[in-house]
Amino acid sequence: MTAYFPPLRDMEFVLQELAGLEEISALPGFEEATPDLVASVLEEAGRIAEEVLAPINAAGDRQGAQLVDGAVRTAPGWRDAYRTVVDGTWTGLPFDPRFGGMGLPGLVNAAVAEMWQAANMAFTLCPMLTQGAVNAIDHCGSEAQKALFLPKLVTGEWTGTMNLTEAAAGSDLGAIRTKAAKSGDHYRISGQKIFITYGDHDLAENIIHLVLARTADAPPGVKGISLFIVPKFLVEADGSLGARNDVHCVSLEHKLGIHASPTAVMSFGDADGAVGYLVGEEHRGLEYMFVMMNHARLNVGIQGLGIAERAYQAALAYARDRIQGKPVGCAELSPIVDHPDVRRMLMTMKAEIEAMRALVYVAAAALDKAERHPDAAARERAKRYAELLNPVVKGWCTELGVEIASLAVQVHGGMGYIEETGACQHLRDSRITPIYEGTTGIQANDLVNRKILRDKGDTARGVLEEVSSLARDLAQRNDDAFRSIGAALAIAAEEARRSLDWVIAAQAEDPRLPAGAAVPLLRLFGTVLGGHQLARAAVAARRRLDGGDPQTAFLDAKLKIAWHYAESVLPQASGLAAAATRGARTVMTLAASQL
Amino acid sequence: MTAYFPPLRDMEFVLQELAGLEEISALPGFEEATPDLVASVLEEAGRIAEEVLAPINAAGDRQGAQLVDGAVRTAPGWRDAYRTVVDGTWTGLPFDPRFGGMGLPGLVNAAVAEMWQAANMAFTLCPMLTQGAVNAIDHCGSEAQKALFLPKLVTGEWTGTMNLTEAAAGSDLGAIRTKAAKSGDHYRISGQKIFITYGDHDLAENIIHLVLARTADAPPGVKGISLFIVPKFLVEADGSLGARNDVHCVSLEHKLGIHASPTAVMSFGDADGAVGYLVGEEHRGLEYMFVMMNHARLNVGIQGLGIAERAYQAALAYARDRIQGKPVGCAELSPIVDHPDVRRMLMTMKAEIEAMRALVYVAAAALDKAERHPDAAARERAKRYAELLNPVVKGWCTELGVEIASLAVQVHGGMGYIEETGACQHLRDSRITPIYEGTTGIQANDLVNRKILRDKGDTARGVLEEVSSLARDLAQRNDDAFRSIGAALAIAAEEARRSLDWVIAAQAEDPRLPAGAAVPLLRLFGTVLGGHQLARAAVAARRRLDGGDPQTAFLDAKLKIAWHYAESVLPQASGLAAAATRGARTVMTLAASQL
Repeated sequence: MTAYFPPLRDMEFVLQELAGLEEISALPGFEEATPDLVASVLEEAGRIAEEVLAPINAAGDRQGAQLVDGAVRTAPGWRDAYRTVVDGTWTGLPFDPRFGGMGLPGLVNAAVAEMWQAANMAFTLCPMLTQGAVNAIDHCGSEAQKALFLPKLVTGEWTGTMNLTEAAAGSDLGAIRTKAAKSGDHYRISGQKIFITYGDHDLAENIIHLVLARTADAPPGVKGISLFIVPKFLVEADGSLGARNDVHCVSLEHKLGIHASPTAVMSFGDADGAVGYLVGEEHRGLEYMFVMMNHARLNVGIQGLGIAERAYQAALAYARDRIQGKPVGCAELSPIVDHPDVRRMLMTMKAEIEAMRALVYVAAAALDKAERHPDAAARERAKRYAELLNPVVKGWCTELGVEIASLAVQVHGGMGYIEETGACQHLRDSRITPIYEGTTGIQANDLVNRKILRDKGDTARGVLEEVSSLARDLAQRNDDAFRSIGAALAIAAEEARRSLDWVIAAQAEDPRLPAGAAVPLLRLFGTVLGGHQLARAAVAARRRLDGGDPQTAFLDAKLKIAWHYAESVLPQASGLAAAATRGARTVMTLAASQL
Repeated sequence: MTAYFPPLRDMEFVLQELAGLEEISALPGFEEATPDLVASVLEEAGRIAEEVLAPINAAGDRQGAQLVDGAVRTAPGWRDAYRTVVDGTWTGLPFDPRFGGMGLPGLVNAAVAEMWQAANMAFTLCPMLTQGAVNAIDHCGSEAQKALFLPKLVTGEWTGTMNLTEAAAGSDLGAIRTKAAKSGDHYRISGQKIFITYGDHDLAENIIHLVLARTADAPPGVKGISLFIVPKFLVEADGSLGARNDVHCVSLEHKLGIHASPTAVMSFGDADGAVGYLVGEEHRGLEYMFVMMNHARLNVGIQGLGIAERAYQAALAYARDRIQGKPVGCAELSPIVDHPDVRRMLMTMKAEIEAMRALVYVAAAALDKAERHPDAAARERAKRYAELLNPVVKGWCTELGVEIASLAVQVHGGMGYIEETGACQHLRDSRITPIYEGTTGIQANDLVNRKILRDKGDTARGVLEEVSSLARDLAQRNDDAFRSIGAALAIAAEEARRSLDWVIAAQAEDPRLPAGAAVPLLRLFGTVLGGHQLARAAVAARRRLDGGDPQTAFLDAKLKIAWHYAESVLPQASGLAAAATRGARTVMTLAASQL
């Protein structure tokens, strides 16, 4: 079993130096997010991660959630842990105090989420999904719906789910067949949904399902999908629970990981049809889903980050403890952390994790600004930036999360392959993150089609120009590390810019070319933008050191980590750029029958 | 559950066009390996893979091997399948007919191993380990030992194991503590070994353990280790079974994958000490292990190849079947194989698999030549080539195997994460391959220290010159694909050559630098040498097409696959070269406490 220690110092460095917590706290509505309050919120959330959530993670994996007599029993310790969540109103952290929330920035929520996902991803999916449901109802529901459902969802007394996928409708939601038949002031929902996270459980007295379904007269495809609220127990006007609704969990999936997160097949309308309430207007369901997509995808990106940090901590602890041979350059038997190849793995993991954390927090801050900035132009700028980052954060952080979890297994050697060690659980858990909430391919197509091609690359070019500008500045400094970072960053940004131009030109030639280029392009952007954040971190660390900050070892590490990333990771940019351009031309050269 | 279809046409193409089966069959002792015989051996081995081994793979994973009352029960179907192996003397394929073997080239054995590992890696570990034991006894044992043990091992009536690892002695075998006390004509062995594959089972009447242990007067470290034969049941002079030896399986590990392969903790000498027979001379145990290392590591590399092919087949079958949306450029709903990003994944998987297969078979052929070539100079050349390739094949193919198995999960989307689909088993199974038989880090250090630094890079430089020579030839052809392949190959080979020179120079500066460079360098070599083989395949395909070979779609695919690899995979060379050179300088820049 692996332990987890919240990396509060690293997190606070990023919040302050890179994500601009001070600026975010100054946004209207976030006045209470003072540095002291934020620090104490993070400390308490970290304590819960370390002491409540992490210790039940391995047992949850072993026992899993179970379906017994039509109801899901969560894993040992889950109910107690969930009570802690409700007692602290943690689900409500980023939500309106009007509904019982804490009213804190999404940026702070992201930092809390990192720790909880690291500590126990299978558990934290539950409050994460509830936050998604709150977002949906808050943005798209009626005032009456908000009044009826939000207070209990915000406190976590009830939980929420997203019912999108059907057996024949995964990435293509246009194929949804679940039906919604109008019946007075509500609808009757019937159909089967799969892959419903926490579709049933014993943590809360009610579950509010958000369900995509098709009304009788709906046009085919994505334009005929509507969004419905389908409570497990109907809710009376006074908020009390009424009759059991006609929605049931009929089975749970056996998955590679996140065993303790019940992944349910949900059946709607086995009897008369489940009572559902239309959210907003008919046929606008997909549009409403997109409203909360940015938050949902950011949250999955955070899972990639969190699990990578957890896996890294496990690998580091093992490497410091395990003695095996005399590392080259050492006179005596030493822990394997002194073997250069083990050190290489740990350095690369740490560098990529710090790059991810910075990009995730910066993306969360951009969402806050996009929603709260008093200046409309600044809101719009922040929105474009946040939307560009969103698929990158989701795709790049989850792919890296899997790779880092796999490297953590490798650092453990043979012990890594033994389940009791705990390293493989992180790998197994992480493997879902590049799949759900839109696969990496879906993210990449979102990046290319919606975030790049729609504005002819303007936003992306602007972001890359910021990177190049910093690179030029660093390359001129009288310091080997900064010069190397500047040089590597300049080359990588140029590769990204050339690939961007290529993709835009290729779209006119054959739209399959950008689609074939999309994933390497996404990884290229992640690699470059992550490197940019590490370079910013190095600059901030240098400034603090020059200003006499006594945390010299900590700050020195920021410089070295940025340097290592610049020399070991950023050079991947040219291979990614080649795959995204020349490589895209070879993707469709075979007939499917030749594969 | 995923199916498996032996890729016989691809395999035979590589055997004939790239690995030089004709030349190998002409080596002394391999006269019976006519093209017809080899074809029928492969066909029958393929039938067993498809019809006997693949169908029990998923159930083996679910049920696993179990320890019941001190004895291991193998998974359902294992005993019947093993009878097929013994009936066909498949374990004996590459061994001396004098001991009952078929006397076929190691090259043919490699091709059979590919299919069996693909079909059922957990099962095939058993004959693979037996082959290792045969190699060890054949090369290092006395004539009496050979006469007593080899006939039954070669037929597979008995199986073999390798007992190296102990809790405190993994990569560092010098830390071995198992004791061997001389007692007349034998020794008494006592100690505990871990991670012993098929350390106990119910497939054969006897198990011949090869055990590394330390004699009473042995010097410390690796120079004090001796090799012993420790049978589960003692063997009388007439070959009949005698008393149960004092060696027992005390527990089985719970692993991420290969559940049906019993990974045993073996206890030697709980009573009087297990009777063991010294192999060769005292204190030369590690040297003897190295004798069979080339074959053992090649075999694990083959596991990487096999599982990648299996995972690819599963992904391709799903992609051809699953309809989801209208792919860009398609007018109608189509299978996801027509989505450019899915095609990109499949193309890259196929290209890497074909590159691996070619390099594996070429490496196997080189071992055959190193052992059998009538000319001493040719033997020596082949030996150096085989030894250079060996860690590359093991390290690169196993790392790619994991990546490809992970990509296969990705192609399946959400279904990939469900255990019943079968895609995750391949990922779980594959994850051990970069760890056992020497981690990728160990392979990479072998490549750098033994295969590159010892001859100052001469062998490696010669191999790269061959690559460059072909690259120059292709770059001059009047054909876009060949010109692109030639250009990409030339650049990648040059990156490898520069990195090679850097590593040699860096060794003099600080021996930690080559150690920190080793893994990226190994991947660089794998990437370049794999690309070289695909380029050779493209040349052969072109020649066949020009000669009127009617398999036009098949041969055309060889050209396109080499082209895709050249544009999408070979460009990774520059990033790998940077990590192996500049990156290596940053690996040790932090104190361990700063991680």
